[in-house]
Amino acid sequence: MEIQLLCVGKTDRSFWSDAVTEYEKRLQHYVKFSLVFLPDVKAHKKTNSSKIKKSETERILQKIKKDDLVILLDENGITHTSASFAKAITSYMNSGKRRIVFIIGGAYGFSDLMYQKFPLRMALSKMTFSHQMARLFFCEQLYRAFTIINNHPYHNP
Amino acid sequence: MEIQLLCVGKTDRSFWSDAVTEYEKRLQHYVKFSLVFLPDVKAHKKTNSSKIKKSETERILQKIKKDDLVILLDENGITHTSASFAKAITSYMNSGKRRIVFIIGGAYGFSDLMYQKFPLRMALSKMTFSHQMARLFFCEQLYRAFTIINNHPYHNP
Repeated sequence: MEIQLLCVGKTDRSFWSDAVTEYEKRLQHYVKFSLVFLPDVKAHKKTNSSKIKKSETERILQKIKKDDLVILLDENGITHTSASFAKAITSYMNSGKRRIVFIIGGAYGFSDLMYQKFPLRMALSKMTFSHQMARLFFCEQLYRAFTIINNHPYHNP
Repeated sequence: MEIQLLCVGKTDRSFWSDAVTEYEKRLQHYVKFSLVFLPDVKAHKKTNSSKIKKSETERILQKIKKDDLVILLDENGITHTSASFAKAITSYMNSGKRRIVFIIGGAYGFSDLMYQKFPLRMALSKMTFSHQMARLFFCEQLYRAFTIINNHPYHNP
């Protein structure tokens, strides 16, 4: 079983990548986890958002394998508590799929095609936050989920 | 008008404090904002959690002025969207109070006395997360709220 977080756009400030790297490291105790960054589509003033989303969709789809279990991180998705997210992870792991891919979209969100192809969606919060924050928040929650699954104490680091 | 975030416990890793400092700086464009860290009560194996919460409550109460508007960040509090949080901030600012104090408790949460004294509570997410993450998440949301209130674009930094 492998878990991947696929993100559109680079991490711009070192404190974000340092924090994410910390959880990426910790997660390796529990699962083969990787973070993949896709370059975002550079927006010119004339580029409309649907064109950008279309290009980003193409880049994302190239990274998805046919038998991946894909979950979009989307503010209209279902909300979990940390405990119910841990349960969801357990059921995904028992689904027989070899890889789970969580995706955080670009600045304009996902295209309609992405929503059609991948119906599973989850929200980290009802609040909107930056993509950098979403990555970090997700990695911390995934780590927390594995500490819950494995019954390990996790003392608010 | 002044806003303060009162936290129990120090920030342990530089990436957390660097990230929080970034938003603290950005917030100064909009409001007099300060972060105050209270030392947490060191727990020995024999110290029970209610004793720790009692000592932390005493430390917190020393920092609260009589006419502060106090809001506890608590996972059982009301959840906001970023837009409704911006509305709440606006109404707090119109309340005539000179200072709004948001409080993130220690590792064991708040004492009953804190809940009795301060009935306003908000949750950042249904998910539980570390205190470091809560601080960063809160600062980003407060910054986002002020960009919404002032109708400034905030391009997913």
